[in-house]
Amino acid sequence: MTHDTSSPTTLDAHPREMHPQRWGDPAAATPLPEAARGLVELAFGLADTPATANVTLAPVGVTDEVLAGLRAIAGPDHVHTDDESRRLRTRGKSTPDLLRARAGDLGDAPDVVVRPADHDEVAAVLALAVEHHLAVVPFGGGTCVTGGLAARRDGYAGLVSLDLVRLDALLEVDEVSMTATLEPGLRGPEAEALLAEHGLCLGHYPQSFQHASIGGFAATRSSGQSSAGYGRFDQMVVGLRVATPRGEWRLGSSPANAAGPDLRQLVLGSEGAFGVITAVTVRVRRLPEVKVYEGWRWDSFVEGATAMRTLVQSGLLPTVLRLSDEAETGLNLARPDAIGEQATGCLMIVGHEGTPGQVEARRAAVTEVLAGLGGTPLGEEPGASWAHGRFNAPYLRDSMLDVGVLVETLETATFWSKVDALYADVRAALERELGADGGSAIVLCHLSHVYETGCSLYFTVATAAGEQPLERWGRAKAAANDAITANGATISHHHAVGTDHRPWLSAEIGDLGASVLRAVKADLDPTGILNPGVLVP
Amino acid sequence: MTHDTSSPTTLDAHPREMHPQRWGDPAAATPLPEAARGLVELAFGLADTPATANVTLAPVGVTDEVLAGLRAIAGPDHVHTDDESRRLRTRGKSTPDLLRARAGDLGDAPDVVVRPADHDEVAAVLALAVEHHLAVVPFGGGTCVTGGLAARRDGYAGLVSLDLVRLDALLEVDEVSMTATLEPGLRGPEAEALLAEHGLCLGHYPQSFQHASIGGFAATRSSGQSSAGYGRFDQMVVGLRVATPRGEWRLGSSPANAAGPDLRQLVLGSEGAFGVITAVTVRVRRLPEVKVYEGWRWDSFVEGATAMRTLVQSGLLPTVLRLSDEAETGLNLARPDAIGEQATGCLMIVGHEGTPGQVEARRAAVTEVLAGLGGTPLGEEPGASWAHGRFNAPYLRDSMLDVGVLVETLETATFWSKVDALYADVRAALERELGADGGSAIVLCHLSHVYETGCSLYFTVATAAGEQPLERWGRAKAAANDAITANGATISHHHAVGTDHRPWLSAEIGDLGASVLRAVKADLDPTGILNPGVLVP
Repeated sequence: MTHDTSSPTTLDAHPREMHPQRWGDPAAATPLPEAARGLVELAFGLADTPATANVTLAPVGVTDEVLAGLRAIAGPDHVHTDDESRRLRTRGKSTPDLLRARAGDLGDAPDVVVRPADHDEVAAVLALAVEHHLAVVPFGGGTCVTGGLAARRDGYAGLVSLDLVRLDALLEVDEVSMTATLEPGLRGPEAEALLAEHGLCLGHYPQSFQHASIGGFAATRSSGQSSAGYGRFDQMVVGLRVATPRGEWRLGSSPANAAGPDLRQLVLGSEGAFGVITAVTVRVRRLPEVKVYEGWRWDSFVEGATAMRTLVQSGLLPTVLRLSDEAETGLNLARPDAIGEQATGCLMIVGHEGTPGQVEARRAAVTEVLAGLGGTPLGEEPGASWAHGRFNAPYLRDSMLDVGVLVETLETATFWSKVDALYADVRAALERELGADGGSAIVLCHLSHVYETGCSLYFTVATAAGEQPLERWGRAKAAANDAITANGATISHHHAVGTDHRPWLSAEIGDLGASVLRAVKADLDPTGILNPGVLVP
Repeated sequence: MTHDTSSPTTLDAHPREMHPQRWGDPAAATPLPEAARGLVELAFGLADTPATANVTLAPVGVTDEVLAGLRAIAGPDHVHTDDESRRLRTRGKSTPDLLRARAGDLGDAPDVVVRPADHDEVAAVLALAVEHHLAVVPFGGGTCVTGGLAARRDGYAGLVSLDLVRLDALLEVDEVSMTATLEPGLRGPEAEALLAEHGLCLGHYPQSFQHASIGGFAATRSSGQSSAGYGRFDQMVVGLRVATPRGEWRLGSSPANAAGPDLRQLVLGSEGAFGVITAVTVRVRRLPEVKVYEGWRWDSFVEGATAMRTLVQSGLLPTVLRLSDEAETGLNLARPDAIGEQATGCLMIVGHEGTPGQVEARRAAVTEVLAGLGGTPLGEEPGASWAHGRFNAPYLRDSMLDVGVLVETLETATFWSKVDALYADVRAALERELGADGGSAIVLCHLSHVYETGCSLYFTVATAAGEQPLERWGRAKAAANDAITANGATISHHHAVGTDHRPWLSAEIGDLGASVLRAVKADLDPTGILNPGVLVP
């Protein structure tokens, strides 16, 4: 049982900019573990990867008048047109994004990067963008995996990356109401570190935690690995300040209300297409005194899933609850430290955080249910291993790409009664499509983010990159999306829509839903400068 | 401790239409208890009430062609133009609504009442309404207290009450996902009775429970007395089917997702202005085996409020949690059976529902916290008394009106750090305004619907009706709304906007919020036939 409240992975400082062609902090990158290398070679063979292309960016396409205007707003030190600044804000971190970056395709690079200091400067940038008809891409941590940073530039007088990195203050803490107001540029660890000074935490730990930003969490309806205990990010938000082309918009009169539709839920998930979030007021919690993560083994995925469902429908939610299928368990992908070891059955990670009394009581109750359903306790080692590696999978992906193996993830959510069919159909679609050219694929899955009525399914796919990896993956991803849509499930549980999922959105929210999104966008952003081509069908 | 799962107040059958000038079931109405009568006489004197005016309604203002069209859709048995049918669907059940009805003012009566059988008939009525430019008021249980049934008729070729009473099926139960799909015309007890056949429940018990409808719960973002345990109605909804003038709209791919903004939250709270909800898929729970409600006494409102906040911020939520202030406790208004008895301090009602094990564990933990904070346990009698009378206050209001005393309620919500100021300011505004003419008022309050970050404040006001009760209350209500708005709180935690709160809505959601509501309405209801004048500023 861990009694320190700030595990190293949580509050370590991380660089605020990632490598343009890889995940995260170059200093944290590691070569492929030998054991994993062996497995990969067995499955796909190993290929040399081409050297990184050294490309030149297209010339800056905005006028000097625009640049002068931006400098007048944010100051000359915060308007950047150098190649490095533009390259670092080109697209996000999906595998296709990395493949394009590795191939030297920087076609989506912004013309200019502006870093406003506060809400008023953001508003002024939007006004300038309206005046000159510039497309504006709000930029947080740059961790998007659904093409949300690849705005359309056709028809615009330039593409501006609106980097919110300087809006990085903890504006207010209300320890009576247990709320805090955070600026959008704060990275996950920075926000947690500022809150920890008050003995508080947010508890939002998506895999992108180390680099993603508060604004991004809000704009994409993010959900973290501890969502069972701390809730989704949209459940944490009680207030928002938004800069729109039509002016400032503030929301957040109360924890909940009946004053018409909850418009906060219209800003959450709006992916920068309706406005730029300049402050977020969130519910916070006391820092947990105790964190304990443990492993449980199930003979089958179905038995494990039934156990998860039983827990959540009994009101007995651990802080962390996730279940790897047989394939993911076999590869130990849930525990990067253990890759290469033999594992059978299905590994469940169960985590409890809180006061010693809370953890003890909840752990005892959960243990009783899980043991009663036939689970085998594996102790804390698998849990500690998972917690240690919980943010590292994207580094592993880079190492795999280095040896010619394409790794990508996709996720969805559905109701419990539909999980089996959705699981089978998405797996089948991926295996069929990636096997169509005589290749093969490893498809792994885990269940996480449990709700009383359903859960999310998170797939990891590995396949030989081959000669045309973008096209190959594009076909597989489309097949998976079609299977998701055919099952009536969601196109994304926590990765958002971006440009990648946009073609499937209308099937989920209906033509009227799409029409409503267009109407809201037209109202708040009449000239369409905000993230054009993202989200709104 | 009660072990029966269906308390009489819960599942008793109630008439599906209420008295046109009073709350609920005439058979359930009781004269003012003697003790209360004495108190009232002491405070305000007693006045005779004028006999109910026997007024004639305005002639039916729609054309024969419209009536023929409606009959062709719903069948001749389900299109009503008789006085009684129109009178029963005139406005809702706010005290001003009752005063107008008692005074014979039926100016908001619909021209015709149509009772479609299903989604397709609802859609056909909307198409007819668009064709003839008829205003359409969706009608559920008729319990609205914010003027949501008093649509504007100017500029329309007639006013149609679209009564959803025949859409009253339990369409589907999914016991794996623990969801159920309900039609909107089901009254609270009807829905619970149908679910109880499967051993399930919804757990949504607003004071209007016996007469309000599922569609109304959804359209107004209702919150019930057991919201601490079962959640707000908007938290229960996972899927919606809506008939709009532009066609059918279905939402609900998953428990939660990141596929753009959660558009379900745009339908919830839309008060019939965006579309007509024709089916609602809700999360359900197993019927509780045990229900226990108990009383706790606090020396002061502040101490009791701190105890509530401590519980919810510790993750220790009872199913029911409410706290009366000194005035409400003194009058025993939380316990209608005990009115007239002496009581001091502040009464808290704490209720637990669930399995015996759940109730025992939660009750022990809650008891430890409350006792540690200085609360005095009062045992189960006050809890049972509250549970017995929990739906009866509106009957008491009628009895008070009968003797010339105006009783009305209003409610709001805010964050914990703002509760004290909001409480003081709303009380002061009401007392000041109602005392301005030399009169006096009793202002009572309870806290309920607790969240980690705040709670709702529910005020009950009693004052002499006087010569011009509508104007008198109108001024007091406006003063209270101004105080709420000045405190940055919500204009309604669970009564919705209707026409009464509409002038204050823009202050809460901003001009941009109002603009967005207008844009969504224009998109879904381009000719503005749906509940004109309701909700949208």
